[in-house]
Amino acid sequence: MATIRDVARLAGVSVATVSRVLNQNGYVNKETEQKVIRAIEQLRYEPNAVARGLAGKQTGTIALILPDITNPFFPEMARGVEDAAQAQGYTVILCNSDDQGQKEKSYIEMLRKKYIDGIIFASNTLGQEDVEQMRSNNIPLVVLDRAPTRQLCSVIRSQNYEGAKLAVRHLLDVGCRKIAHIYGPQELITAKKRLLGYEETVMHFPWYTPSLMVPGHFRVDGGFDAVKELLKRHPDVDGIFCGNDLMAVGALKALYQLGVRVPEDVALIGFDGIGLTELTQPELSTVAQPIYEMGVLAAKVLMETIETGVMEPRLYELEVTLVARESTKRRAEA
Amino acid sequence: MATIRDVARLAGVSVATVSRVLNQNGYVNKETEQKVIRAIEQLRYEPNAVARGLAGKQTGTIALILPDITNPFFPEMARGVEDAAQAQGYTVILCNSDDQGQKEKSYIEMLRKKYIDGIIFASNTLGQEDVEQMRSNNIPLVVLDRAPTRQLCSVIRSQNYEGAKLAVRHLLDVGCRKIAHIYGPQELITAKKRLLGYEETVMHFPWYTPSLMVPGHFRVDGGFDAVKELLKRHPDVDGIFCGNDLMAVGALKALYQLGVRVPEDVALIGFDGIGLTELTQPELSTVAQPIYEMGVLAAKVLMETIETGVMEPRLYELEVTLVARESTKRRAEA
Repeated sequence: MATIRDVARLAGVSVATVSRVLNQNGYVNKETEQKVIRAIEQLRYEPNAVARGLAGKQTGTIALILPDITNPFFPEMARGVEDAAQAQGYTVILCNSDDQGQKEKSYIEMLRKKYIDGIIFASNTLGQEDVEQMRSNNIPLVVLDRAPTRQLCSVIRSQNYEGAKLAVRHLLDVGCRKIAHIYGPQELITAKKRLLGYEETVMHFPWYTPSLMVPGHFRVDGGFDAVKELLKRHPDVDGIFCGNDLMAVGALKALYQLGVRVPEDVALIGFDGIGLTELTQPELSTVAQPIYEMGVLAAKVLMETIETGVMEPRLYELEVTLVARESTKRRAEA
Repeated sequence: MATIRDVARLAGVSVATVSRVLNQNGYVNKETEQKVIRAIEQLRYEPNAVARGLAGKQTGTIALILPDITNPFFPEMARGVEDAAQAQGYTVILCNSDDQGQKEKSYIEMLRKKYIDGIIFASNTLGQEDVEQMRSNNIPLVVLDRAPTRQLCSVIRSQNYEGAKLAVRHLLDVGCRKIAHIYGPQELITAKKRLLGYEETVMHFPWYTPSLMVPGHFRVDGGFDAVKELLKRHPDVDGIFCGNDLMAVGALKALYQLGVRVPEDVALIGFDGIGLTELTQPELSTVAQPIYEMGVLAAKVLMETIETGVMEPRLYELEVTLVARESTKRRAEA
């Protein structure tokens, strides 16, 4: 493989001159530039990424830190990030944080030493001081599903509040008269906004009572347990809005075990729009986030920040869509 | 951040000497070494990964090339790779090849320029010439689910043939008297071995006929379509072995639509052991590969190759396990 020295020798110039041509900085006269370019072409010289990283230029590598790639929400997002990155010649380092702050910190440390160009955070435990540290280290950063308080970097998320209202109104539209909510961890902005959307839509109904809200931890088993608790408290519930699809899958299993028919006895809807909702029996209605597009957008915003050097914190709030499937298909329209 | 020059200045030695201490090559007397080490500690100097990459040392980065992270088989494997890598201070670059040879080649090219330490291939279209090219470029390589013909690198796979026999014998054990097979793409060693295991187990039965084998392309919709075709050909089929779990999920949906009860009318079993099989109704029996462990092993074998510099091609064939669930729980034991 040709080195920069080979190029310099063939072009009859110094290594510094070749470097100036490559990095397009400093003055090089046209004729010399042409000689260097011809030598580069002739030798098929490729300035390597590691050397560029050392010179403080970009390495063309970004990191994606997410809680767990085996959670069915994240592969589609990761795919979006990777497709957008690959299209611009970037590679993506995958990091599973398990939402452990300590693991995240050690990743950031490891990535800093490798001169990563930037980080996409889809993990939940990123602290304010981590953001500030990365900012002081000049590491471009894009985060997903975060509140915009003291916003130091771009944030991408979906309309969680509006989506929850869509879900609950859909249940009302198909004739539900007592609607429960299985909610996710309230320290997460996504879970919090969805619960708020539920509460504000139903609080004026005579049947509403706070005990219609049960925690399900955003997990399949959490949704399963929540349904058992919920139907003990309120055997007359006829509609359930789950704060994410994984909990809806668990809820569906519990309802089946209890001999409760979906959608005839209880109509069921989730949130997220993961592929799994099309594979259950019956198929699950959901409020779909544009998961793949969120990944694409995160990568594009990050790469723009890296390439322009301008970190301008912006908030992107993407639209959600009601996807009505069998699990809410009831004969009795209200 | 301190540079190697700062360390040299503080220790009162040359940069070359610091480099010799860092890389533990060449002669440095004890006293000088101590001075350098003290300077390193005092300045909290961290030799950076990019510089190590440039010097021909390891960058601590490996790549995982797989067909598509949104295929539910791969997140668990990727998680295994990443966990094992992270435990040894390596980072993992994720590449989705979509099984397109051209995309793989462009990845390999991109990775080569970034001085990646090694590659794990879980993709299907890696050609013999790609393997040879990587070998000639001295890029350590581990592949998954490959045949060991002209084996130039380590191969990790499961007992596909034995697993298929396990599945079919299980269907026989629960009383099935006419067993069909939905198979995957026959250019894949996994699909081929599983079909062979089916054929050799059933070929001596009087009911056996080749039209009991239907292609399902390893996809959900493929399994769905295959069942419809199969039951047209053989309405009396009472057991189906699907070559992977995704096809079994599709088969289950088709059976439900046709009003065929699982397991009462038809017992159904898949292959792989992905998490999805626990979420369907009824839960799916399957032959489980140790997917996570395959990822861990691939990473460990690769890192060992990187660190020892010894590329000794070995074949690892991991055991599979029969997981009997509701979809094969029939009253009538044969």
